[in-house]
This record gives sequence, C-alpha cells and structure tokens, in this order.
Amino acid sequence: MSLDEAGLDLLFRTARTPQGWRDAPVSDDTLRQLYDLVRLGPTSGNCSPARFVFLRTQDNRERLRSALSDGNVDKVLSAPVTVIVAHDPLFFDRLGVLNPEPGLRAWFAADVGLAEETAFRNGTLQGGYLILAARALGLDVLPISGFDAYAVEDSFLAGQGWRANFLVSLGYADGPPALPRAPRLTFDEACLLL
Amino acid sequence: MSLDEAGLDLLFRTARTPQGWRDAPVSDDTLRQLYDLVRLGPTSGNCSPARFVFLRTQDNRERLRSALSDGNVDKVLSAPVTVIVAHDPLFFDRLGVLNPEPGLRAWFAADVGLAEETAFRNGTLQGGYLILAARALGLDVLPISGFDAYAVEDSFLAGQGWRANFLVSLGYADGPPALPRAPRLTFDEACLLL
Repeated sequence: MSLDEAGLDLLFRTARTPQGWRDAPVSDDTLRQLYDLVRLGPTSGNCSPARFVFLRTQDNRERLRSALSDGNVDKVLSAPVTVIVAHDPLFFDRLGVLNPEPGLRAWFAADVGLAEETAFRNGTLQGGYLILAARALGLDVLPISGFDAYAVEDSFLAGQGWRANFLVSLGYADGPPALPRAPRLTFDEACLLL
Repeated sequence: MSLDEAGLDLLFRTARTPQGWRDAPVSDDTLRQLYDLVRLGPTSGNCSPARFVFLRTQDNRERLRSALSDGNVDKVLSAPVTVIVAHDPLFFDRLGVLNPEPGLRAWFAADVGLAEETAFRNGTLQGGYLILAARALGLDVLPISGFDAYAVEDSFLAGQGWRANFLVSLGYADGPPALPRAPRLTFDEACLLL
C-alpha cells in the first residue's frame, strides 16, 4: 500500500510555505493530535529527545518578537500558533521508560558530545516529522531557523533546561504564495546510485 | 483537506521499523520517485544540503560491513537498498541556483560554524522527509545512526567531500516485528502549551 496522488500532493507536491495566514484558530485538540503522530516516528534507540512548546496566546507569541529577524516578524507573529522545536539535553534520563537496554543511559551520560549530537540529530528528525504530520492534518507550516535561539531559551525554556532548535509557525494559509516554488537540485546533482 | 486514517496509519500509526526483509527488490525508478518527493520538503532558505548515496548492489552494500555495529550487520546488509544520508558541507556553493538572495553564499562561506550547523540541521530534516516519503511510497525503513561515519566517508564519500549523517535501509518488511512498539513520552511529558 502507498499514499494516493492526493496524499502525496498534500505532503509534498502542492504543499508550500505560506506567506500569510487566514484568521482561523488551531485548537489544542489539533495540537494533541499532532503530537500523537509525531511521537510515533522513529528515533535512535527510541531516545525521543524533542520537546515542543506551543505558543498560542497573543501575549506569548508577542514575546518571540525580539528573537526574530525583521523579515520574519509579521509572518510569525500573525500565525495562530508557533511551535518552538526544542530538545532536552538530558533526554537520556528518560531512557528507563523508553528503552529497556541496560547501560544506555550511562553511555550517553558519560559522553556529552555524543549526547548533544544525538539530541540535535533526533530532535531535528522529530521536527521533520512535525512538519509533515502537520501537513497531514491539513495545516500549513512555516519553519524558521534564522532566529536568536539564546533569547528564545531565556524567555521560554529556562525552567526546563531545554535547547531551542527551530521554530514552526502553524495555521491555515491565506492563499498560495505569489512566487512559484524555488528550484531544487536534480537527482544527479544530489544523489549517487552505487 | 487532510490525510485519511489509512494514510496516517501508513506514515505513523501502524508503521514499524522492520526486523527483516522480504526478498523483493527496490527499483531505481522507485528511488528516483523517492528523491523527487524528498527534494520538495522545506529547508532553510532552500539550502537543500542533503545528499543521498543509494547502495544497491551486493558488493557496495557489503562495503558497509566494517562500519556497522555487530547488532546491525544482518539487518542492514540484507536490505535491498541502504541509503547514506549525507550532506555537502559546501552546500552554499549551490545557492546561486537555489536562492537568488544576494550575499547568502558569502554569509555561509564566512562562518564555518553556521554553515556546519545549517548543513546538519537541514540535511537531517531532509533525512526525516526521506523516512516518511519512503513510507508514503509503501517502503519500510530502518534508520541507523550508530555506525562509523568516518569509515563510511572514507569508503563512499571521499570523492565528493560529503559528510555522513545517518543510514536508512529500505525494502519491504518480512512481517510485523515480534515486540510491540516501545513506549513514547506523553504530551504532558514532552510538550508545553503556552
């Protein structure tokens, strides 16, 4: 079994990063449905390091302003929800629940470089699952990685000790982007068949 | 519009990492279809740093053996295709085609730390798109990040100068895994609603 053409269009082919948003809310129930999909995606040893902070209220979204570059302020602050895709650098403390393999926690706790790389790689993968799961639920997504991560951590993540990775604004696009999709690399430019 | 239940099952809910493979090939045409989906997923400034090396022949797959941990050798080498998800550290040299914004290439070329982080984050996102796009095409996927990346770079990527990020074996599972899916973190453990 595979996805039909409409499904491939929804996730990849006709999906575009929106330039603006309809005035339509995203419910907490939708955010819970979204996480319930995202958490099922595979991570290394089921380490599941990603953490998601959903900024829904006007006040909390406004607190992002100073961390954004000028060109992104309007697009991000007008979205009904912006997600801080973060990760827990101490993700290995949850391995007792997530993975029964003995010694795995100690292996990460003893090697901070390995732990950081694992958290960044797998937290980013989970952020990719979030992007496509949101599209699967009919949402449009605007990912942003050009922002002041330290400011976001100070404002929103200090209590948890989580690290900010990137932002994803969620909502319903107010129409197709004016410009056609930017070019992509061809198979022969980006792939080798060995 | 959103994906129907069968589509959500295919991508997330019933999808599992296989423990073994059916003796069924994956065609080059399927790999090209796969890349044609993956390349459409969003990256920061359309930087598109991921590069994909598809190991299809028995000889080339066998060259992975010494880079794999003992527990992964059989699972990976018996897959019909294993993809090296890599990235090009000089991805910014392609920005003239990918993104017309002037000065973007120079901005990355002047800051190797920013370039490395951007390549790793966005190359990993594209690897996440590969995992879900493969499932969308009916393939099963086995991602592996515990392997000797330097050995893989020496064996397969030296000519291109690409960096190895993780591996994804592709094929058709020989049946459902014997064990139930490992637990995941609840919404309240991994998410904040602000």
